[in-house]
Amino acid sequence: MRDLIKKYMKGLIPQNMLERGTIVLESQLDPLRILFEQRKIPEEGWSDSQIRLLLTILSMMDTDKDPQAARVGEREARVASPLVSGLAADFCHGIGRSGEIYAAQPKAPGASIMYTMVNKLASDAIQRFGAPNLKHSLLLPLPTGMSIGLTISAMRQKRKGKYVIHPRIDHKSPLKAIELIGLETRIIEGELKGDAVIVPPEKVAEAINKETVAILSTTTFFPPREPDDVKEIAKIAREHDIPHVINNAYGVQSREIMRKIRSAVDAGRVDAVVQSTDKNFLTPIGGAIVSAPEPEIINEISEQYAGRATAAPATQFLAAILALGIKNYEKLRDEQEQNRKYLEENLNKIAEEYEERVLQVYNPIACAMTITNRDPKKVGGALYNLRVTGPRALGPADYGSCVDKYPTAYMTMNAAIGTRHEDIEKAIQKLEETLKQVR
Amino acid sequence: MRDLIKKYMKGLIPQNMLERGTIVLESQLDPLRILFEQRKIPEEGWSDSQIRLLLTILSMMDTDKDPQAARVGEREARVASPLVSGLAADFCHGIGRSGEIYAAQPKAPGASIMYTMVNKLASDAIQRFGAPNLKHSLLLPLPTGMSIGLTISAMRQKRKGKYVIHPRIDHKSPLKAIELIGLETRIIEGELKGDAVIVPPEKVAEAINKETVAILSTTTFFPPREPDDVKEIAKIAREHDIPHVINNAYGVQSREIMRKIRSAVDAGRVDAVVQSTDKNFLTPIGGAIVSAPEPEIINEISEQYAGRATAAPATQFLAAILALGIKNYEKLRDEQEQNRKYLEENLNKIAEEYEERVLQVYNPIACAMTITNRDPKKVGGALYNLRVTGPRALGPADYGSCVDKYPTAYMTMNAAIGTRHEDIEKAIQKLEETLKQVR
Amino acid sequence: MRDLIKKYMKGLIPQNMLERGTIVLESQLDPLRILFEQRKIPEEGWSDSQIRLLLTILSMMDTDKDPQAARVGEREARVASPLVSGLAADFCHGIGRSGEIYAAQPKAPGASIMYTMVNKLASDAIQRFGAPNLKHSLLLPLPTGMSIGLTISAMRQKRKGKYVIHPRIDHKSPLKAIELIGLETRIIEGELKGDAVIVPPEKVAEAINKETVAILSTTTFFPPREPDDVKEIAKIAREHDIPHVINNAYGVQSREIMRKIRSAVDAGRVDAVVQSTDKNFLTPIGGAIVSAPEPEIINEISEQYAGRATAAPATQFLAAILALGIKNYEKLRDEQEQNRKYLEENLNKIAEEYEERVLQVYNPIACAMTITNRDPKKVGGALYNLRVTGPRALGPADYGSCVDKYPTAYMTMNAAIGTRHEDIEKAIQKLEETLKQVR
Amino acid sequence: MRDLIKKYMKGLIPQNMLERGTIVLESQLDPLRILFEQRKIPEEGWSDSQIRLLLTILSMMDTDKDPQAARVGEREARVASPLVSGLAADFCHGIGRSGEIYAAQPKAPGASIMYTMVNKLASDAIQRFGAPNLKHSLLLPLPTGMSIGLTISAMRQKRKGKYVIHPRIDHKSPLKAIELIGLETRIIEGELKGDAVIVPPEKVAEAINKETVAILSTTTFFPPREPDDVKEIAKIAREHDIPHVINNAYGVQSREIMRKIRSAVDAGRVDAVVQSTDKNFLTPIGGAIVSAPEPEIINEISEQYAGRATAAPATQFLAAILALGIKNYEKLRDEQEQNRKYLEENLNKIAEEYEERVLQVYNPIACAMTITNRDPKKVGGALYNLRVTGPRALGPADYGSCVDKYPTAYMTMNAAIGTRHEDIEKAIQKLEETLKQVR
Repeated sequence: MRDLIKKYMKGLIPQNMLERGTIVLESQLDPLRILFEQRKIPEEGWSDSQIRLLLTILSMMDTDKDPQAARVGEREARVASPLVSGLAADFCHGIGRSGEIYAAQPKAPGASIMYTMVNKLASDAIQRFGAPNLKHSLLLPLPTGMSIGLTISAMRQKRKGKYVIHPRIDHKSPLKAIELIGLETRIIEGELKGDAVIVPPEKVAEAINKETVAILSTTTFFPPREPDDVKEIAKIAREHDIPHVINNAYGVQSREIMRKIRSAVDAGRVDAVVQSTDKNFLTPIGGAIVSAPEPEIINEISEQYAGRATAAPATQFLAAILALGIKNYEKLRDEQEQNRKYLEENLNKIAEEYEERVLQVYNPIACAMTITNRDPKKVGGALYNLRVTGPRALGPADYGSCVDKYPTAYMTMNAAIGTRHEDIEKAIQKLEETLKQVR
Repeated sequence: MRDLIKKYMKGLIPQNMLERGTIVLESQLDPLRILFEQRKIPEEGWSDSQIRLLLTILSMMDTDKDPQAARVGEREARVASPLVSGLAADFCHGIGRSGEIYAAQPKAPGASIMYTMVNKLASDAIQRFGAPNLKHSLLLPLPTGMSIGLTISAMRQKRKGKYVIHPRIDHKSPLKAIELIGLETRIIEGELKGDAVIVPPEKVAEAINKETVAILSTTTFFPPREPDDVKEIAKIAREHDIPHVINNAYGVQSREIMRKIRSAVDAGRVDAVVQSTDKNFLTPIGGAIVSAPEPEIINEISEQYAGRATAAPATQFLAAILALGIKNYEKLRDEQEQNRKYLEENLNKIAEEYEERVLQVYNPIACAMTITNRDPKKVGGALYNLRVTGPRALGPADYGSCVDKYPTAYMTMNAAIGTRHEDIEKAIQKLEETLKQVR
Repeated sequence: MRDLIKKYMKGLIPQNMLERGTIVLESQLDPLRILFEQRKIPEEGWSDSQIRLLLTILSMMDTDKDPQAARVGEREARVASPLVSGLAADFCHGIGRSGEIYAAQPKAPGASIMYTMVNKLASDAIQRFGAPNLKHSLLLPLPTGMSIGLTISAMRQKRKGKYVIHPRIDHKSPLKAIELIGLETRIIEGELKGDAVIVPPEKVAEAINKETVAILSTTTFFPPREPDDVKEIAKIAREHDIPHVINNAYGVQSREIMRKIRSAVDAGRVDAVVQSTDKNFLTPIGGAIVSAPEPEIINEISEQYAGRATAAPATQFLAAILALGIKNYEKLRDEQEQNRKYLEENLNKIAEEYEERVLQVYNPIACAMTITNRDPKKVGGALYNLRVTGPRALGPADYGSCVDKYPTAYMTMNAAIGTRHEDIEKAIQKLEETLKQVR
Repeated sequence: MRDLIKKYMKGLIPQNMLERGTIVLESQLDPLRILFEQRKIPEEGWSDSQIRLLLTILSMMDTDKDPQAARVGEREARVASPLVSGLAADFCHGIGRSGEIYAAQPKAPGASIMYTMVNKLASDAIQRFGAPNLKHSLLLPLPTGMSIGLTISAMRQKRKGKYVIHPRIDHKSPLKAIELIGLETRIIEGELKGDAVIVPPEKVAEAINKETVAILSTTTFFPPREPDDVKEIAKIAREHDIPHVINNAYGVQSREIMRKIRSAVDAGRVDAVVQSTDKNFLTPIGGAIVSAPEPEIINEISEQYAGRATAAPATQFLAAILALGIKNYEKLRDEQEQNRKYLEENLNKIAEEYEERVLQVYNPIACAMTITNRDPKKVGGALYNLRVTGPRALGPADYGSCVDKYPTAYMTMNAAIGTRHEDIEKAIQKLEETLKQVR
């Protein structure tokens, strides 16, 4: 680069200024070079110009940009206008081949390099953020639910059958995904253990039979549900030789949860772990990362996707992880932990004041408080009107507690990654207003 | 608007200039108003500013933009940086609910309005571009293959079974999609009829049995394969009460093919028709439109999608269809027809010169010529090196002709929508170079 | 570049695809390389991506982008937000030094290279578009009027005095510019020659005296004023040894006018020629190009500008001239000539119908028609209301005809570069409506 | 707006969601409404979307956007491509009329509203940030130097003459500007007062004579020069009835300097005060704000500008001041004061260590330290190589100290607005390295 600049820009400005300009430019291009050399998440976050430059150069490698091409296929990434192209960061050919989503697409060398790099950075992320034994990762341009579907579908290569065993989580997406792929869900009911709702691993073991295709366990959900004991379930899976998929939807943000994942992989059988890109990596909604200890499972999942896909979730993940870098990500995790603590402290104060109590449930991201003297629906409605987004207020029989009837009404709040201290502060204050208002 | 401007901008510039500015502004805002009033594709294409303004206003309605919100959910569309948000046109909350992809998302009123409008415009497109009896449409943020999977999965509500009957098309995506949803494909082999490869409808009828879930027919593929006789197959489907899905991948561009679709719907049973957004509407890769004569099937397909989805394919379709408008689209169709004719004429000339012949196959988009005196692989390779993208050159036994052995080697070229006359011209000229070069 | 890509991207995708991606990328980067090698306007226009890439790389060379810098000056191009920076295409340091506008700015190597290149391309433009003997050009980030001021101010190095001789043009900007620099204007009145208003060169000669600083002649104005006989004036200037500046505001678009400029330079004395960037090169308003046969005058003009300047007009000119390229520019000139002809033909038709006549005035860009049976103010007003922008309708005594009293009222229309055939068509039709309406 | 949304978007999503979307949108549009109502700088800074929306709506009011216009003028803001237009934020018609820069331009109602608003916000800024008695302001699309030229040129309306009295400042731009407008500068030499270089007001008074057009005093320069005693000079100006212009280049950032300006206006005669937009308001280089206690002077300055101007500096100022808001600006000023203190403390430490001393000079922005044991050129060079930008290292006889010979070599550093604590820290550390290195 230095030589190119010296050669081509020579004489346009005095030599010493050109020298300085070259140094300044190189300081910014160096991270790009290092990215291609190391193929790992950078320590420091990138600037917007750097990210845009990378995307520009890569998108300029796709064949739809070839000024000399004669394009006579039925699909040549022709677009209605430059604005439309820009909405795809100019990756108009999308990613993947009809055979495999992660295969390089001959018409899109640039997008293919981009997506390969994304998968390398996704893999690096999962390893560095807590699960070094999950060595292989694939970003799917699909939400967590759909990605779980493809993952379990891939399990059918290993084991035929009809059922997926699923310790109860009151969330529709995984259930729908299992149905989509033509399987049925065997839900293992939750039970109370103090305030917490848990699913004892031995009930999972008991449910296994010849028709079991896989077990789908879960690490992140809102309280009173606690994370599944994925280590024990992994042991059971190994013992019974049953594929085991973990829905780790928003677990990457939490060092504790990643430790659980890691020890599950070490201690037993974990075929794949699925995590959301938006909930963990601050991207817009639309992608998930599937990780596995062995490469074959990634291959098989890649083969489940039928057709070429939108490049958007991959591009957005790339931009997000480069904008963050390792250091900022760890800083955000620190803040997440502080916010979680701050949330609990303040809920405790409010609880005391209003004769409620904070539920004693293990959950590194969210916190719940009883609502015994008020209608939870009204509490939820009031919070909504006060523009608190994301809390849940549920009655004892509502879908969400993962048991048929929970002893009390309650409400939850999250201190997830990216939440600002100010959000918690405001939410707490609005909660107080609400409790004063609502009778 | 006029009143707002008069009120707020008063006195900043002389009244008559303000009047003129208001008129100019209104001329550009009118199409936005009309869009919301009529909820149909505009006659005239929009300018970039108009499209951007629409996207801006809608994305500003999503709750992640609320400056007063306290956001304490686990998923609040927090993003790493404004650049990352921009990569999603600021629709960071994506589209849909975990229950149904087309349901309005409470956290994303703007994206929900956007997506509802997209579905209305998609519906308008299918109706105005040739199939007024397909009254209901849904854009899926998935490629054609995956969308066929979800569509057939929805058919299981109507009919249980194990098999999908599929007149042979040598394309992997639909096959993979059927496998993904846990079904098997019964391929009905193609046969020769003159130069053409066809699948006789009666063979489809014969294959139907109790285990048949649905028939998947196809309108667009490259020659020598001809489009399926979807009208006859529709009649058979009605007679046997079997769900019938048409893969109309790039058929919307062709008035002739849309006429076939229309008469199939009129004459028999067509449950759903699936078409690519990128191949028909000049968007980047990533979306498909599923259309149906009845609304229920759209509901059911909407319920197949597990989780919230990336807003990118919907946003890109919206921008593309607004940039085009009805008039430009019809103009592009005229050009497509002229290019198709021009392609055939010129292939005929070359064929004569090089002792080959153009295959007599009905195909409104593509054209094929025999390659009898040369190695088709070398021809393909030479074209590739000359930067002709999209042609296919196949030997008699290669996957692609939809029969086990086609009588001759051949090559195909497309004159698809959006192809410029210049592309065809250049491709023809490169083909001549190739035939001179390759022995 | 090829080597860099091969080295760094190796292994991310199959080698043959990487090869293709590299070829496609190089096809697009080649024009950048050629630009720096030749430092001339490209034959073919550039794509948006190419232009943006060039601007990005250059702006990344400015020291305000240096991630390692400690910036402790009073002016370090700190900006309020990335959006604000983007409004300057990230050239936040502007251009120039307080000493000379065209000197390289040590804090802004990238902007300095950009501006040097701009001046080379401006110089190339003037030479290739008709005046090869104006070898030196400088883009000033100022409109034509202000640029004329700086140019004449530089003339004071050559000749002291108080007056600028100016064949009458009814346009305020040059007059104000002369006043700004502390000089007075000696206007030489226009006179009739048939329909045309001209200023005889001998009257210019007569006006010269000891106090004359310079002559300011003009090539482009609207009819009935004809271009000054710059060749004769140039001869007079040489004879009397008086600096001669030509206001060639929108003359570059016209091959004929550029021929006049060229022969004036050849035949006599022309110190500098000033032309607008927006009127000739389709940029937003804000810049002018000063050209001279000798480099010294450019130096002196460069020294007149006090302070560092906004980079916007230079950046916009660069983008415009690269987007156009030589071929498109010549094509636009062809269209301008056709449109001018078409305008005259149609004004003739209307004139005949409404008992008016087209004025017999030499003007390669605009055309005028008498208005004898109507109030010109009403005609002007009606055209305005019909959204025809740019025509002028003047009464005999109005400022604009360059004589105190012109024999008739008239209206003018332009067929300037960039005007679409459709504009002329519509304007003609609205003019007819107007003449029907207005009595 | 609420009514419009309710009317047009009705039925696209459930009513309660539409309600919420409307509330969220309104929260963001409210600041736009308030801006037009109050025409003052907002308390809170705006988001990028808000700023972009404002610019979009305004630029859509310019006549070059009129889809129905027939444009037949010689200057119709035709541009080479949308990218080129975007480089001007779509204000392709620029600002102003050939008569007056601040007059509304009939072809550009949107840009005219924008520029009028800019001048109102500029006026608000000067008043709120410390000089409420400077009630009228005008943003010129010119650097401080050129703006001083236009300002003094306007003074000629009040007083004829040949000379501008200028207490010595070693900066070329104002001198060049005075020369440009055809006047001469009478420099009043600086003298030592302790470490400081000052110009005693009585020397200014003595220099006044019949030929004096104006006095140009200065508030901001780097040490050892101290700000002029503008209050005393204002008194002298009043007494002698001489126009008085203050060059307040980067003084708005400093509360102390603005107090001096304010009391000068109160106590004596100040015709106009000129300040840089980039140095005070974090915009890219290119604009200046001229402020005056009386509106007439602003009118006269507005009339000095010959021609229509680039809209870029106005647009950039608008975006910057809206992005900042009052609160952020005051916060930046707080930081500036802290940084200035921190800079002095640390220079003191270093000085002690290296047997130098910090000069005892009043300067609220910059600080200077002697360099007695080293070659100042080498110190400057070493700092440059260590990527410290902005410091100055001068020998006793160098241009810069505002006296012919200063007793000692010295170097200066600034803690200007927008400088980060980190910059000072790094600069200090690099200075230490430098002093260790250089002998």
